[in-house]
Amino acid sequence: MGKRQYAVIGLGRFGTSVAHRLYTAGQEVLGIDINEESVENAELSVTHAVIADTTEAETLKSIGIRNFDCVIVAIGNDMQSSILTTLLLKELGVKKVIAKALNKNHGQVLSKIGADWVIYPERDMGERVANQLLSPNMLNYIELSKEYNIEEIILPMSMKGKSLRELDLRATYNISVIAIVSNGEIIIAPSPDQDIHEKDMLLVVGNKEDLAVFANNE
Amino acid sequence: MGKRQYAVIGLGRFGTSVAHRLYTAGQEVLGIDINEESVENAELSVTHAVIADTTEAETLKSIGIRNFDCVIVAIGNDMQSSILTTLLLKELGVKKVIAKALNKNHGQVLSKIGADWVIYPERDMGERVANQLLSPNMLNYIELSKEYNIEEIILPMSMKGKSLRELDLRATYNISVIAIVSNGEIIIAPSPDQDIHEKDMLLVVGNKEDLAVFANNE
Amino acid sequence: MGKRQYAVIGLGRFGTSVAHRLYTAGQEVLGIDINEESVENAELSVTHAVIADTTEAETLKSIGIRNFDCVIVAIGNDMQSSILTTLLLKELGVKKVIAKALNKNHGQVLSKIGADWVIYPERDMGERVANQLLSPNMLNYIELSKEYNIEEIILPMSMKGKSLRELDLRATYNISVIAIVSNGEIIIAPSPDQDIHEKDMLLVVGNKEDLAVFANNE
Amino acid sequence: MGKRQYAVIGLGRFGTSVAHRLYTAGQEVLGIDINEESVENAELSVTHAVIADTTEAETLKSIGIRNFDCVIVAIGNDMQSSILTTLLLKELGVKKVIAKALNKNHGQVLSKIGADWVIYPERDMGERVANQLLSPNMLNYIELSKEYNIEEIILPMSMKGKSLRELDLRATYNISVIAIVSNGEIIIAPSPDQDIHEKDMLLVVGNKEDLAVFANNE
Amino acid sequence: MGKRQYAVIGLGRFGTSVAHRLYTAGQEVLGIDINEESVENAELSVTHAVIADTTEAETLKSIGIRNFDCVIVAIGNDMQSSILTTLLLKELGVKKVIAKALNKNHGQVLSKIGADWVIYPERDMGERVANQLLSPNMLNYIELSKEYNIEEIILPMSMKGKSLRELDLRATYNISVIAIVSNGEIIIAPSPDQDIHEKDMLLVVGNKEDLAVFANNE
Amino acid sequence: MGKRQYAVIGLGRFGTSVAHRLYTAGQEVLGIDINEESVENAELSVTHAVIADTTEAETLKSIGIRNFDCVIVAIGNDMQSSILTTLLLKELGVKKVIAKALNKNHGQVLSKIGADWVIYPERDMGERVANQLLSPNMLNYIELSKEYNIEEIILPMSMKGKSLRELDLRATYNISVIAIVSNGEIIIAPSPDQDIHEKDMLLVVGNKEDLAVFANNE
Amino acid sequence: MGKRQYAVIGLGRFGTSVAHRLYTAGQEVLGIDINEESVENAELSVTHAVIADTTEAETLKSIGIRNFDCVIVAIGNDMQSSILTTLLLKELGVKKVIAKALNKNHGQVLSKIGADWVIYPERDMGERVANQLLSPNMLNYIELSKEYNIEEIILPMSMKGKSLRELDLRATYNISVIAIVSNGEIIIAPSPDQDIHEKDMLLVVGNKEDLAVFANNE
Amino acid sequence: MGKRQYAVIGLGRFGTSVAHRLYTAGQEVLGIDINEESVENAELSVTHAVIADTTEAETLKSIGIRNFDCVIVAIGNDMQSSILTTLLLKELGVKKVIAKALNKNHGQVLSKIGADWVIYPERDMGERVANQLLSPNMLNYIELSKEYNIEEIILPMSMKGKSLRELDLRATYNISVIAIVSNGEIIIAPSPDQDIHEKDMLLVVGNKEDLAVFANNE
Repeated sequence: MGKRQYAVIGLGRFGTSVAHRLYTAGQEVLGIDINEESVENAELSVTHAVIADTTEAETLKSIGIRNFDCVIVAIGNDMQSSILTTLLLKELGVKKVIAKALNKNHGQVLSKIGADWVIYPERDMGERVANQLLSPNMLNYIELSKEYNIEEIILPMSMKGKSLRELDLRATYNISVIAIVSNGEIIIAPSPDQDIHEKDMLLVVGNKEDLAVFANNE
Repeated sequence: MGKRQYAVIGLGRFGTSVAHRLYTAGQEVLGIDINEESVENAELSVTHAVIADTTEAETLKSIGIRNFDCVIVAIGNDMQSSILTTLLLKELGVKKVIAKALNKNHGQVLSKIGADWVIYPERDMGERVANQLLSPNMLNYIELSKEYNIEEIILPMSMKGKSLRELDLRATYNISVIAIVSNGEIIIAPSPDQDIHEKDMLLVVGNKEDLAVFANNE
Repeated sequence: MGKRQYAVIGLGRFGTSVAHRLYTAGQEVLGIDINEESVENAELSVTHAVIADTTEAETLKSIGIRNFDCVIVAIGNDMQSSILTTLLLKELGVKKVIAKALNKNHGQVLSKIGADWVIYPERDMGERVANQLLSPNMLNYIELSKEYNIEEIILPMSMKGKSLRELDLRATYNISVIAIVSNGEIIIAPSPDQDIHEKDMLLVVGNKEDLAVFANNE
Repeated sequence: MGKRQYAVIGLGRFGTSVAHRLYTAGQEVLGIDINEESVENAELSVTHAVIADTTEAETLKSIGIRNFDCVIVAIGNDMQSSILTTLLLKELGVKKVIAKALNKNHGQVLSKIGADWVIYPERDMGERVANQLLSPNMLNYIELSKEYNIEEIILPMSMKGKSLRELDLRATYNISVIAIVSNGEIIIAPSPDQDIHEKDMLLVVGNKEDLAVFANNE
Repeated sequence: MGKRQYAVIGLGRFGTSVAHRLYTAGQEVLGIDINEESVENAELSVTHAVIADTTEAETLKSIGIRNFDCVIVAIGNDMQSSILTTLLLKELGVKKVIAKALNKNHGQVLSKIGADWVIYPERDMGERVANQLLSPNMLNYIELSKEYNIEEIILPMSMKGKSLRELDLRATYNISVIAIVSNGEIIIAPSPDQDIHEKDMLLVVGNKEDLAVFANNE
Repeated sequence: MGKRQYAVIGLGRFGTSVAHRLYTAGQEVLGIDINEESVENAELSVTHAVIADTTEAETLKSIGIRNFDCVIVAIGNDMQSSILTTLLLKELGVKKVIAKALNKNHGQVLSKIGADWVIYPERDMGERVANQLLSPNMLNYIELSKEYNIEEIILPMSMKGKSLRELDLRATYNISVIAIVSNGEIIIAPSPDQDIHEKDMLLVVGNKEDLAVFANNE
Repeated sequence: MGKRQYAVIGLGRFGTSVAHRLYTAGQEVLGIDINEESVENAELSVTHAVIADTTEAETLKSIGIRNFDCVIVAIGNDMQSSILTTLLLKELGVKKVIAKALNKNHGQVLSKIGADWVIYPERDMGERVANQLLSPNMLNYIELSKEYNIEEIILPMSMKGKSLRELDLRATYNISVIAIVSNGEIIIAPSPDQDIHEKDMLLVVGNKEDLAVFANNE
Repeated sequence: MGKRQYAVIGLGRFGTSVAHRLYTAGQEVLGIDINEESVENAELSVTHAVIADTTEAETLKSIGIRNFDCVIVAIGNDMQSSILTTLLLKELGVKKVIAKALNKNHGQVLSKIGADWVIYPERDMGERVANQLLSPNMLNYIELSKEYNIEEIILPMSMKGKSLRELDLRATYNISVIAIVSNGEIIIAPSPDQDIHEKDMLLVVGNKEDLAVFANNE
C-alpha cells in the first residue's frame, strides 16, 4: 500500500489512538480538534495538527478536506458536531468517511446522512473484554461465523507435556488445532506427535460452545 | 464454566457493554454507578443495579463486594474515583480487579496499587480501527508474536476462481492458508485443489509484512 | 376537514403558536416539552400537555405517537434533540413529520433522515418583515411565481377619488386590479367606473418590479 | 424607491434574515450585535457590521443612529436590552423603530415607550404554519378582512380536467376564481370555458369557511 | 390616617426596610418575593408574606393586588421583572404604584409605562451621605428650594456659651435661627438672650452657601 | 471648607452617587473598584479612577491611601472585602473611614475593627420612603429627638385661603409653624395674619403624633 | 479534668480532627456544619452532630451555644462566615472561642471582634514539617525560648556504642542530654557511663544552632 | 548542614508555610503551582517560583526536577494531581518525595506509588490543638512512647513560691522535673532547693495519665 492521506477529527483518546497507529505505519495524518489543548497533546501522533471548527463548511474547505483519502470523525461526546461534520464531509465530496457513534440512534443518523462506516468503539471493546473474562484461557479470537470461532488458547495446566495425539482434541472436544505458538515460534498444521509444553498457545477452530468447554479446563 | 459473580463499576458506554455481554452469557452481573441516570439506562444489561459511591469502604462492604469473583472498574473520566475504588477493592480482598486506565500514568498508578489487569479500551480500539484502515481487505487478526499474525482476509478480486495450487501463496507471498470460510462453511487445512470464490475469506498465517503485501492486492 | 390529531414537540414561542392556532381551529393537539415550565405555560393552547424527553423511543411509544396524523418538531435550540426526535418519529412510523430547522445544514440533516417538511420560521418571517419595509404601502402578498406576485396595496394618496378608468393602471404600471377592499367590503373584478377612496386597498397582480414601482407611489 | 439606510440591532436568525433581504434588495444595512460571533456570522448579509452595546446612549450616538431611516430592534431573548435600546432610539430621535416582542406584555411595554411597529415573528409564523396544516391544499393566503380571504389553492384531484363552467364554484362553494396559475403562467379573470389541469393553482376569494370547505376536497 | 393596605414587591434590604417601617406604623403590609429565602427573612417585617412571580398577571390577580392602596416595586437588580411587574400593576388598575429605578433609563421606562412615583434610593442616599461629609457639623437638612435649606447644625466649638444676640448670626452669616435643641428640649423662636451651650443643635434657615460657611466653623 | 481628598471604594450605584456629589461640590475624589466596568462607568463622577483590589495592603499603600482625609467603603455585597478593606485602612492609619453595612452584624464587625461611621443606606432610605407614604402631605422631615420632628407639609386642601390666626394650629393640633414656603419664597416666623394658599408648604415643629394628625388632613 | 462541653463549628479535615481527639478523650463534643455531607462524614468523631448555619443568631441560640465551655470555629475557607460566627458567639456570651484564621488579616479581625485564641493550623504545620526537613535526625522538639530548644534526636550512626562520657556532648556541642529513650524505656538524667545504642533517641537541651550542628551528624 | 535544593509543589497556605520556613533557613527553594495567583502570592517565600502543571512528565523534566534533594508535594485538594505528580517524581528518580495526604486512602495510594513520607497536616494540627485544649496548662509536648511524654507545663497557681523539694512531684504525681524555664532562662536538672515562681514553666517527664493529673491542677 502506498502513502495515503488521512484526517482524524476529534483528538480524544480514541481519535489520537487511531491517528497514532496510522502515523506510525507511515501514513500522512492530519489531526483536527476544536480544542487547543487536545491538539497540543496529539502533536506526536500526527503529521500536522490544526485547531478548527469542523461544523463550518468554509473551514473544511480551507483545510482542503476533499483531497483526503479517508476522514475519521472521532468526535467524543458532542453528537451535534459529529452529525454536522459528517454531513459536510459528504457534501464536500470526501470519498470515505468513518464516524464514531455514541449509541444506536446516533449511528442511524450517521448512516442516513452518508457515513460510509459507523463504528461503536466503547461497545465493541466492552464485548472483547467481557469475552476474555468469560474464557480467561482464551487470549484472542476471530469470529468466523455466528457459530464458529478461531481462538488462541493457553494450554490448560492439566494437558502439558502431552502430544497432540494423546490429547486427541478432535475426539474429546470436537475442535481442531491449526497451529501452535511455542516460545515465539509458530508451528502450522502440527503433526500428531508434536509435544505441547506449559505456556504454549494453541490456535484452535471449532464451534463456539465446544471451544468454551475446552478453554475452561484448568 | 459455571455461573460467576461480576460487578461492573461505572456504567458508561464501555462499562455497560462489558456488563451486557457478561449478562447475556448467563453470568450474575451487578451494575454500580454513582449517577442515577446511568444506573437506570443500564437496567436491561445487568442482574441488579445500584447507585453507590464506590470510593467509600463502608458502601463497598455493605454491597458485599468481597463475594464477587471479579470486579471491573470502568469509571469514565474521574481518575481519582477510579484509583480510590481500585485501592479499596484490593484492601477489601477482592481477588480479581480489572481497571480501565485513561492514560499511561493512570495505568501505572492502578498497577502499583494492585489492579490485576489494566486495560486501555479507547487506545486498543483506536489501533484496531487503524489496522483495518491500513488493510481494508483484512477483516480481523490475531497477533501471534511481534512478527507473526494470523489474519482473516477477503479474497482479492484478481484471485477469484483459482485453486490454492494455482495461487501458490506460499511461494508468491510466503504465507500459509490454514482455513477458508466459504458461504458460512469452514474448510480447515484445505487441499491444494480447493477452488476459491468471490467473497471467500482466507485465514492465513505469516510474517506481518508479507501479509500486508498480500492483503493489499485488489 | 374532520378532527385530526396533532402533536407539537417543543413548546417555545413558535411551537406554542402553532399549537394554539390548531387548537382554536378545533383540532386535537398534544403539547410535549422536556421542560416543566414550558408545558405549564402552554396549557391553554393544547388539548393535553406532557413533560417528556422525545429522544427516547420508549417515551414516544408510551405516548402512542404513531397514532398522530401529524407531528411538528418545534424544538428551539437543541439541534441534537431535534435530529434524534425526528429520526425516532420516522422510525416509529409517523406519517407526517414537520421539523423546524435552525440553519441550512440542520435542514439538510432533517431531510436526509426523513422529515416530510422542513421549515425555517425565523428566516421566512425575517423576509416577510423586510419585504413590508421595502414596500410600506404593500400590506401582504402571495408569490405566484418567481416573477409574478399578487399584492394587497394601500391606495397611494395621490390617486384617491379617481375611478379605475382614470387611473388606467394597466397602461401606466402594467398591473391588473382584481379586487378592491373598501370599508371591509370586497369588490371582485371591479368595473372601470368604480371610484376608489382613501384607505381603500387594491388587490393587484403583476410583475414584481412593476408592482414595486406602483407600491412606492405616495 | 430610492436607497434607504437601515440598522438591524440583534443579528440572530430573525435579525439576520431581515438584514439579508434588505441588503439583497439593494438597501444600505448596518448590522449591530453585542456578540462578536453573531457579527461575524452576519457579515455577508449587511453593508457594515459593528459590535456594540445598544443600551448605552453614547454608543448609539457614536454610530450616528439618528441618521438611519429605520431601525429594527431584533434582539433575541434579552427583554431588558430590547426595552432600553428601543427607549434610547426614540429618545435620540430615530423616526421609525420596529421592535420584536417576545410576548404580549413585552409588546405593550415597547408600544408605551414609543416603538412604531411591534412584531411577534414566532407567533405569526406559528400561525402561518398551522393554517397551512389545516388546509394542506392551500399554499398561501391574504387575509382581506375578519371574514374574507384570498387564497392560493392547489386544484383538488377530483376536479382536474374540467372547465370552470362545469365546476361552477360560485354556486357550489360560494367562492370566486380570480386567477389561475398554470405552468408558471397567470390567467387573470379566466373565462368560464377555461379548462383546469392537474397541478394548476387557483386564486379564489371568499368567506373563510367556504374556502376551507373547498380547500379540503381531495 | 386609617389603616391602609400596602404591598411591597421585592424583599431585599431596601424593600424590607420600607415594609418594616410601614408595618411598625400599624399598616397592613403584604411582602412578596420570588425567592423563598428572602420571604423567610422578611417575616417579622410584614403582616403576610408570599412567594410569587409578579411578572405573571394571573399570579397578581390571585393575590387580589387591585385591592391594595399602594404597591411598592422594590425589585433589586432584575430590570426586566421590575418593568413587567409595574406594567401589570397598572394594567390591573392599581391606583398608586411606586417603583425603584436602578438608573435614569430604567426610571424613564417606569414613568412611561405608568409608575406614579419613581425613586432612586441608592442615588439619593449617596447624596445625603456626601452632603453630610461636606458639612460634618450639619446633622440633617430639608431642601426648601433650589437655593434655600433648613439645616440642623451642631454648634461650632468657638461659639459655645454665647447668647444668640452676641453671635448675631443674621448679620454675620445671613442666616436665621428658628429653633434650638438643647438637651432633648426644643426651643422654638428662641429669644435673643438665649444662651447656647456645647452640644446644642441649631435649626437655621438660609441660603445654601451661607449655611455652608456657617456649618464649616470649628 | 477647603478642598479635601476623598476616596470612594466600591463604585456601585451608592458609591458612585457619593462620589458624584462630592466631586460636583469641588472636592478631589478617587474612585476605586475591583471591577473594570464599574470603574469605566464612574469616570464622569470622580477626579481619578483606578482598578484595584483593596483587600491587599500593598495595593492600598501604592495608592497612597493614608494621604486621604476620608475614605468611604461602599463595597456592594462582598462582606469579606468590606471587612478586610476597612481593617487595612485603619491599620494603615486612615483618619476617617466610613463603611456601608449590609446588616446589623456586619455593622457590628465594622465598628469593632475601627470604622468611624457605619451607614446602612438601604435601611435608611427604606424608612424615608415609608415615612413619606405614611404622611403623603409631608415632603421631608428632620428628627429632632425621639418625640419631636420638624416637618415640611403641603397645606391640606381644606385649609387653603385662611390666615394662620384662623387656622390656629397651636390650639387645634398642638404644633407650631416656623416658616412658610410660598412660590419658592420663604417666610420665617410668619405673622398670624399671613394668608396661606394652595400649594404652600408649612414648616411645622411638634410632637410626632400631633404632626401625623395634622399631615393626614385632606 | 472533668467532662467539658465543646462545640466544633466547621467539620472539614482540621475541625474533624480536633473533634475526634476531644471525643476520644472522653469529652462531650457537638459537631456543627452547614453542609450535610460534612456532618455525615464526622458522625463517628462527635457525640452529636447538627446541620446549621452559624451566622444566624437564632440558630446558635436554639442550639444552646452559651452552655458550651469552649467553641472552636474551624470554618474552612469562608472568611465571612468565620467572622460572623465568631462575632455572634461572643455576643451570645460564649466564654472561650477559638478561631482558625486563613491569614494574618483574617486573624486580626478575629482578635478585634473578640476571639480568645486565634490559630493558623496550615502555617504552623508547615513550619513543623520544614523544621523536620532541616534536621532529619530530629524527630520532635519543644521551643523553650527564642534561643533554646529541647529536641528528640536519633543517635547519629557515628556515635553508636559509646558511653555519654566518651561522647562528651557538652564539651563538643555545648548541649545537655536530659534523657535517653532506648527500646521504649526512658532513662532520665542518665549517668555518664550510660552506653548508647543504635536507634536510641536522645533528649537534648541547648541553643538552637548548637543543636542543629549536632543533629546534622551522620 | 549545607545548602540543599527543595521544590515545593502546591503553594497554598500549607505549602507556602513549608517553603517560607525552608527559605528563611537559607535553603534554595523552588515554588511551583499551576495557578498564577498562588505563584505570585508566594514570591517572598521562595528563591524562584514557576507556574507549571506537574502532572506532565515533560514539564517536570524541563524544570530539572531530578536535581532537587527533596520535593514536597503540598497540592491542596486535587487528589488526582497529587497522585500523578508523586508518581512522576518517583519515575523521574527524585530521591526524597514528601506528599501531603487528604485522608487515609489518599495516604495509602501515595505510599504504594512510592512517596517516602506521607503527612496529614490538618489531622496532626487538629490533634495538637485538641491536646492543648484538654490540658490548658500544658504548652507543648513530645511523645516519647505510647505511654510516656515529656511536657512543658505552666506552674499551677497553687504551687507557686515553693521549692521542688516541698512540691515533691515524684512522690505526689509520679513525675520528674528535668528542667525549669524561668524568665527565659533554662535550668537543667534543677536542684531540690530550687524555688519555683509564678509563670515558671516546668519540663516534666512521666506517664501520660500522671502528667494529665498534674497539668490539670489550678
